[in-house]
Amino acid sequence: MKKLSPSMMCVEIDQLKDYLSIFEEEKIEYLHIDIMDGEYVPNFTLGTDYIRQLRQLTKIPLDVHLMVMHPEKKIGWFDFKEGELVSVHGESTLHLQKALQEVKCSGAKAMVALNPATPVSSLEYVLDDIDGVLIMTVNPGFAGQKAIPMAVDKIADCRTFLDEKGYPNIEIQVDGNVSYDLAGQMSKKGADIFVAGSSSFLCGISGVKEGIQKMRRIIG
Amino acid sequence: MKKLSPSMMCVEIDQLKDYLSIFEEEKIEYLHIDIMDGEYVPNFTLGTDYIRQLRQLTKIPLDVHLMVMHPEKKIGWFDFKEGELVSVHGESTLHLQKALQEVKCSGAKAMVALNPATPVSSLEYVLDDIDGVLIMTVNPGFAGQKAIPMAVDKIADCRTFLDEKGYPNIEIQVDGNVSYDLAGQMSKKGADIFVAGSSSFLCGISGVKEGIQKMRRIIG
Amino acid sequence: MKKLSPSMMCVEIDQLKDYLSIFEEEKIEYLHIDIMDGEYVPNFTLGTDYIRQLRQLTKIPLDVHLMVMHPEKKIGWFDFKEGELVSVHGESTLHLQKALQEVKCSGAKAMVALNPATPVSSLEYVLDDIDGVLIMTVNPGFAGQKAIPMAVDKIADCRTFLDEKGYPNIEIQVDGNVSYDLAGQMSKKGADIFVAGSSSFLCGISGVKEGIQKMRRIIG
Amino acid sequence: MKKLSPSMMCVEIDQLKDYLSIFEEEKIEYLHIDIMDGEYVPNFTLGTDYIRQLRQLTKIPLDVHLMVMHPEKKIGWFDFKEGELVSVHGESTLHLQKALQEVKCSGAKAMVALNPATPVSSLEYVLDDIDGVLIMTVNPGFAGQKAIPMAVDKIADCRTFLDEKGYPNIEIQVDGNVSYDLAGQMSKKGADIFVAGSSSFLCGISGVKEGIQKMRRIIG
Amino acid sequence: MKKLSPSMMCVEIDQLKDYLSIFEEEKIEYLHIDIMDGEYVPNFTLGTDYIRQLRQLTKIPLDVHLMVMHPEKKIGWFDFKEGELVSVHGESTLHLQKALQEVKCSGAKAMVALNPATPVSSLEYVLDDIDGVLIMTVNPGFAGQKAIPMAVDKIADCRTFLDEKGYPNIEIQVDGNVSYDLAGQMSKKGADIFVAGSSSFLCGISGVKEGIQKMRRIIG
Amino acid sequence: MKKLSPSMMCVEIDQLKDYLSIFEEEKIEYLHIDIMDGEYVPNFTLGTDYIRQLRQLTKIPLDVHLMVMHPEKKIGWFDFKEGELVSVHGESTLHLQKALQEVKCSGAKAMVALNPATPVSSLEYVLDDIDGVLIMTVNPGFAGQKAIPMAVDKIADCRTFLDEKGYPNIEIQVDGNVSYDLAGQMSKKGADIFVAGSSSFLCGISGVKEGIQKMRRIIG
Repeated sequence: MKKLSPSMMCVEIDQLKDYLSIFEEEKIEYLHIDIMDGEYVPNFTLGTDYIRQLRQLTKIPLDVHLMVMHPEKKIGWFDFKEGELVSVHGESTLHLQKALQEVKCSGAKAMVALNPATPVSSLEYVLDDIDGVLIMTVNPGFAGQKAIPMAVDKIADCRTFLDEKGYPNIEIQVDGNVSYDLAGQMSKKGADIFVAGSSSFLCGISGVKEGIQKMRRIIG
Repeated sequence: MKKLSPSMMCVEIDQLKDYLSIFEEEKIEYLHIDIMDGEYVPNFTLGTDYIRQLRQLTKIPLDVHLMVMHPEKKIGWFDFKEGELVSVHGESTLHLQKALQEVKCSGAKAMVALNPATPVSSLEYVLDDIDGVLIMTVNPGFAGQKAIPMAVDKIADCRTFLDEKGYPNIEIQVDGNVSYDLAGQMSKKGADIFVAGSSSFLCGISGVKEGIQKMRRIIG
Repeated sequence: MKKLSPSMMCVEIDQLKDYLSIFEEEKIEYLHIDIMDGEYVPNFTLGTDYIRQLRQLTKIPLDVHLMVMHPEKKIGWFDFKEGELVSVHGESTLHLQKALQEVKCSGAKAMVALNPATPVSSLEYVLDDIDGVLIMTVNPGFAGQKAIPMAVDKIADCRTFLDEKGYPNIEIQVDGNVSYDLAGQMSKKGADIFVAGSSSFLCGISGVKEGIQKMRRIIG
Repeated sequence: MKKLSPSMMCVEIDQLKDYLSIFEEEKIEYLHIDIMDGEYVPNFTLGTDYIRQLRQLTKIPLDVHLMVMHPEKKIGWFDFKEGELVSVHGESTLHLQKALQEVKCSGAKAMVALNPATPVSSLEYVLDDIDGVLIMTVNPGFAGQKAIPMAVDKIADCRTFLDEKGYPNIEIQVDGNVSYDLAGQMSKKGADIFVAGSSSFLCGISGVKEGIQKMRRIIG
Repeated sequence: MKKLSPSMMCVEIDQLKDYLSIFEEEKIEYLHIDIMDGEYVPNFTLGTDYIRQLRQLTKIPLDVHLMVMHPEKKIGWFDFKEGELVSVHGESTLHLQKALQEVKCSGAKAMVALNPATPVSSLEYVLDDIDGVLIMTVNPGFAGQKAIPMAVDKIADCRTFLDEKGYPNIEIQVDGNVSYDLAGQMSKKGADIFVAGSSSFLCGISGVKEGIQKMRRIIG
Repeated sequence: MKKLSPSMMCVEIDQLKDYLSIFEEEKIEYLHIDIMDGEYVPNFTLGTDYIRQLRQLTKIPLDVHLMVMHPEKKIGWFDFKEGELVSVHGESTLHLQKALQEVKCSGAKAMVALNPATPVSSLEYVLDDIDGVLIMTVNPGFAGQKAIPMAVDKIADCRTFLDEKGYPNIEIQVDGNVSYDLAGQMSKKGADIFVAGSSSFLCGISGVKEGIQKMRRIIG
């Protein structure tokens, strides 16, 4: 079943509870949280306190996207929980298997995030260690970018690769310009989890409920 | 006049507007915002979106404490505003004067933050470039630490240094275990701006108003 | 058509104008300019001022080879022009697509440079973003090294890869010991642009004209 | 023929000579020496003085595993000797071919070490430059970890890759939880050199001789 | 006696020989060469080949200003000569005495360069190792900046410090907006060597000779 | 009372127990252990296993000299014990007070090590946190260098500084070319603990006992 993970970076902080109500009513599957360190990506976003507080406000599991250097040294700071998703960028660590092991030890599900230029074949020896792959269809760091066509095509390549290697249960998440226009083809190519932000239903709280429903219909 | 700068990291996100109401009623002078990069300090906190949104929710000027490596390359990401305070750590840059220049160009007031071990004399050639000094009385990165006595004493050394050099208008901010017990002596030693967090009135919203008033009486 | 890009690092600065005259008479296609940062490679070479001045002395488009860490953060320093070539090393950045995007935004043509050990398959998801591939047949940093046979063979592998993927127009540049002896086979394997230096016609100005003509005959 | 390389990190320093006697009697092929820098891996082990002294105590050639950042800049510190093995991690350098060249220049045999997540295909363009591949079946840094099944399977993938590319003489070394239970299958998959440590016969000197003989029978 | 060191970064490459003729006629004492690495400062300038070639075109000794990270590891790349000046930034190395030792070993004279914020007291334990101090009156990296008053005042502080410590022979060089307007007071404060660039006589070759003579009169 | 700390790096591993016997008979106060990371200093030496094993072979407390980047992140790897000395380099960390705190938490005594160029005044705000100061009289990384006179003089400056600040109990350790010739003046200047290596009694085991006794007479 297709899943939605709205980007909390796009949620106005003073309306957080209202958003969470809608997300819960609409049975949103995950809350996407970007962690940026200003070194791996040129921006700063959310942090450990936000995560700790958010867990107390909702039962929706978190989907934490670590855009940080050397994630294997930092995973312990977050106290990840069972049922949460945690993505580490393959480009950000020399010890990818170790980083994934650290995530698994915490009880959370581990994913590898891939920058637009990073080949799917880099996943070959961590397939046992992951529950998902996060395909970036824009360069990480900012909202508002246009999807890169080759990165969108990578969704299909990734699905084929995972199936051929015997890992049909590994899910594919897509992040970056997941608009109403593009989400359909992303879904057809094999995306399972869709990070939704300002390209779709997170442009002010008024249309969120309808936006979620529209997106559900598009991704199928 | 003594000023208060409550740490927004200690404010529950779902009660943000209630806190801001109290802060405005109590004429809080600044809102202290910690930016951490996971490299300069081992933690992640708030980011550029939070700052952008907070500016729209209140008129209280922001007081942004950059705990990041190479701040001179990152100041441009924040779009700082006139009247805001921005602190850069002297230890985090090889180009301190340039980082301060970058802050001033944005219209904000520039401060140098000093770790517990960093001598006051390191400020000697940036006195023309700063509006304040942020003295860390704990090591940056986490709430809940005990103040380091030599770092508290540094407040007085710093005041003397600034006055002797002819810069009586440079203010001293103190951050780290600013409790009801310690704030009085910090004030007497010369602190002007007090970062308040879980050591004083930010332990749940119920006592905040009284806590602010109590703290005002203590710091004088 | 095969193209020549003489390495300006091998041109004596006091005879620059004489070299440029010959290059223009001989319709040299590009001027190869090495930028080294002492971190990605253990040497320093030319810089932004040299590039700015060279543009005013000749109409031959520049071919700038960035041997620097994190090129995506530095491309903006060069003010690249339409028609120029800019190569970024795949090994030097975690954000290859972004670096190439930065080049394209400037109007220049983007190339990926590959160190001797770097596989051709690393190009898979940036084929839409590049106009060429620069295959290093020596380790970058110094003139005077001997070509590495497997890296020379990579030229043919790269040509096959590009054609099979449907990108016959992506050109291949070769850099490193492009001698009269080796240039012929490099050309047959599929190289399009040849960086010429001290291994061929840049060993003093006297033989340059004849050297260029000889090289033209060899590369065909 | 299968070879053993006991890990000197597991040898009690006060019994070094007794160990060396047994190793020589049992015709141990190599002595495995871990060099860790606290950056590439989170630990410190042995150094240049130890290596220099060990060479004077035995004729058994050393097998030095460099778990350090930027090995190409550090190989010169060791004064490697003909007949020694030196492994550099593919993940630790942007200039893998250069690092291997540096090893070869010293007269030693060069190997590439691969972390659990690193694909075999990364070796494609250094096959001419190497005498062996060191497959890590645990993440480097510590003794006492459990082997990662996909990394064990990589031994067979690597053997196939080397043979298909025409390099049957390149040997495969395996390091990480090489126990009596696992060594047999590691050998069948194609491992040639076995790093032995606390998982097999290096748990106190009393059983070492028998342990070596047992291991010889297992690896065949 | 006061000395001039024109910045070669401001000399048009196609007129290099004409500049050198004038510099020799006017008995220019040094040629100032900026080496930038894109990490310590955000720019790239000149390199080892330029230096090698320049030495063959003139007898005027070079004055090389290293704006690079970890200079102690890079000094060997330049093959410095007796009589040349070499400046290393105190902020760019954790091993300042070692970097200066490296310079001295090459036969050149060693200087410490100080960024605008860096105190003079940082020189205390290298006074035996230096022939000069380079005081930056702008932040390093670019031409065209305005002098920072506190950094100009540092010239006098430095002279006093050197004399009081018993080192009257250590010379002071000043670099950054050394204009006809400012050079006089810089000289009076104690500067001995003046880096001249676009702020004074290096704005096109036509006025260079007169500019040098004018500057000589101003600095005395 | 003056104390000796022989450098274990200079002790032949196969004679370790003989050395330890002599050291115990001669009531050697500490065993000096160098930890180098190849980044802070260009060498690798000893590690955590050596330390663990050495503790089981002798009761003499260890004196561990950390020549590593970011020691505050690595102190936990060593499991330091009460009565041991641990030195962290002031130049190697942006968080000196935190690193010292980490040492103290382990029960060991904390020292700051100072490179030859580093001023004594950098200790001003950590005097409460240290039990000693390690003055390097050569640049760290290698045995066999000549003492730097200004660094030797720093011993006296440091003693004066400590006494004037009211810390007469903070001890001074000296490391680097502590020869029979120099140890006397080092002692008179105020050194309390002497790292002994190849410059004095660690040049082969035969003369060690007499060497220790000679050194005791010299340092008084």
